[in-house]
Amino acid sequence: MARTGRRPGRPGTRQEVLDAARSIFAARGYDRASIRDIAAAAGVDPALVHHYFGTKQQLFLSVMGAPVNPVELVPTVLAGGVAELPERLVRTFLSVWDHPVSGPAAVALLRSAHQNEWTARLLKEFLTTQVLRRALAQVELAPSEAPLRSALVMSQMLGMAVVRYVLALEPLATAPPEAIVAHLAPTIRRYLTGPLTGAPSQAPGAL
Amino acid sequence: MARTGRRPGRPGTRQEVLDAARSIFAARGYDRASIRDIAAAAGVDPALVHHYFGTKQQLFLSVMGAPVNPVELVPTVLAGGVAELPERLVRTFLSVWDHPVSGPAAVALLRSAHQNEWTARLLKEFLTTQVLRRALAQVELAPSEAPLRSALVMSQMLGMAVVRYVLALEPLATAPPEAIVAHLAPTIRRYLTGPLTGAPSQAPGAL
Repeated sequence: MARTGRRPGRPGTRQEVLDAARSIFAARGYDRASIRDIAAAAGVDPALVHHYFGTKQQLFLSVMGAPVNPVELVPTVLAGGVAELPERLVRTFLSVWDHPVSGPAAVALLRSAHQNEWTARLLKEFLTTQVLRRALAQVELAPSEAPLRSALVMSQMLGMAVVRYVLALEPLATAPPEAIVAHLAPTIRRYLTGPLTGAPSQAPGAL
Repeated sequence: MARTGRRPGRPGTRQEVLDAARSIFAARGYDRASIRDIAAAAGVDPALVHHYFGTKQQLFLSVMGAPVNPVELVPTVLAGGVAELPERLVRTFLSVWDHPVSGPAAVALLRSAHQNEWTARLLKEFLTTQVLRRALAQVELAPSEAPLRSALVMSQMLGMAVVRYVLALEPLATAPPEAIVAHLAPTIRRYLTGPLTGAPSQAPGAL
């Protein structure tokens, strides 16, 4: 499918596409970046980008060095209904971070989000629009509360990642995954379904 | 007090002491590093180190670029007893991170802990031995449970820092501090005083 003026694949092309994608994603954000524009920036045919990297989502995850496709984990977390969702969410999250291959990649991505503002911005956009919105559409959350509830959940999940994998703080660093699940699930459950006592629309009385 | 063979203060000395302190702290950890050794490494008198930086604790915080001395915040958090301790803990934490001067410094330190393993290691050691142990000695926690409880608290506090200040995820990024206090305090309270259902010594039955 290579067309006029477009270079076909050759050594180095894969990296050039990745570099172009990084620039375009950083400049426009995930949603407004297109495979067509990324291909043009790399001087290759869009079909070649698809050939190397698959969908835009997959290309994005390659650019970020993402250890897994979080979108693909959503069905696992949601399977079986909302009753045990907090447990499955923490368990699935830990399975990625505890894994010998995806774990270090996840830590590298978390580090990168702390170093580069555009990585933080893109990760946030991707997680919000591609992962959380899809997941939340399938659980019974009031749409107006969903952003706050999912941000609170992320605060506890990412905090556990920082403490367990970056700081390696004991006893959490070496605790068995199921112990972490038991500690965090009630927190996640309250953030997802508990009263939002701190909602700005409500006066935080006793405080 | 400058003695034989030791250079007195001159332009650049302050930075040389900082560099020496960084190396010694990184190599030995907070506890085993001494002002005497740091002074020797910088080729200055220990009195000059004290003159520039104060105590070892203060020198350490200068090396880390710490926005505040967390040890000095402990009395504020503990004042008034344990009943409202979670609220005061979150409120005090946010007051540092929301502040126009100490906030960016705190974010820089969090970033540094993600980039440099020695920063992460030193921060962990300092927070554990100098801050948490002192604080926990004054609240009624079983000593055997204190490390787990404080690590869980840190996971939620640091996670909020990542989400609110690094990722700037809405609505938490711009939520008023008292809303965050109301969201997090029940979590902190459960981690400090609730049942440790996930303790490795107990079988996590339903999981």
